[in-house]
Amino acid sequence: MTFILGIDPGSRLTGYGIIRTDGRQHTYVASGCIKLTLTASMTERLQQIFMSLQEIVKTYSPHEAAIEQVFMHQNAGAALKLGQARGAAIVALADAAIPVAEYSARQVKQSVVGYGAAKKEQVQHMVRVLLNLSGVPQVDAADGLAIALCHANSRQNVGKITAQQLLVRGRFRRGRLR
Amino acid sequence: MTFILGIDPGSRLTGYGIIRTDGRQHTYVASGCIKLTLTASMTERLQQIFMSLQEIVKTYSPHEAAIEQVFMHQNAGAALKLGQARGAAIVALADAAIPVAEYSARQVKQSVVGYGAAKKEQVQHMVRVLLNLSGVPQVDAADGLAIALCHANSRQNVGKITAQQLLVRGRFRRGRLR
Repeated sequence: MTFILGIDPGSRLTGYGIIRTDGRQHTYVASGCIKLTLTASMTERLQQIFMSLQEIVKTYSPHEAAIEQVFMHQNAGAALKLGQARGAAIVALADAAIPVAEYSARQVKQSVVGYGAAKKEQVQHMVRVLLNLSGVPQVDAADGLAIALCHANSRQNVGKITAQQLLVRGRFRRGRLR
Repeated sequence: MTFILGIDPGSRLTGYGIIRTDGRQHTYVASGCIKLTLTASMTERLQQIFMSLQEIVKTYSPHEAAIEQVFMHQNAGAALKLGQARGAAIVALADAAIPVAEYSARQVKQSVVGYGAAKKEQVQHMVRVLLNLSGVPQVDAADGLAIALCHANSRQNVGKITAQQLLVRGRFRRGRLR
């Protein structure tokens, strides 16, 4: 059994989700959202992320972690703040010797919804269905769970190439199906 | 005696400087530059910043720390990377219960050179003069030392208002000197 922690860091809210997987079946363990005190200083807020994740790691002992990869951001000021939150989160995991994988938002949506441009609500819905939850999880928590699910699915594929991937590779290599 | 750690974080190099101050006189203790392994993953690099600063904190036991404040950045991608490095650095200090002050580049230059738009070389030169060093420190280390010096000078002013500040306040309050 492998425990996977998925994290969606932000400068105001950091969503997280923990799932358990045997390689085939994924089970819900926990999820939530670290709400940062907006009146607190930047340093205190980063410390809140760091300490909350340390607490989560202590409680659930995840074996692996996954975080959303960020490519571009319109606003440089927002990118700096998001970067600081990500840095604090990643360091909390690295300090506990937990390997951290990165996935783009597109990869997460593709893996969970089957469609890379899926909307937030679709992600929430599919997280509920895939983990057999009684209700729709809060949006940031759902993102954390979706990232964990994406990693669980990617781990399965490590070392094996699916028939579909072979087909696509063949297509692009030769210009026609082999 | 107060030990102050100044940090200039970056996604490739993180400069640092430690000075000792009795409130009036500032003495050089140490300085250097954390060079990140560029072939390492982003997670590993953030961990390098975090662990190196933990080591520095352990070695020199600084009472206070100061970091350069970043306002705007042209490139959002670069701002994200810089933010991650800052997040990792700040969390290393916060985790050791060291208060972190922030100063803009302008404030640092004003404090050390006496001119907010001073060039890198002028900062390096004044750091050498102020700390009575036998040679010019490496540019990132000089920035770390400059930030520490800026904090040392600002600490002195806490609670006391200089004659010049009073003058300026008077001017703005009444429209004429009192």
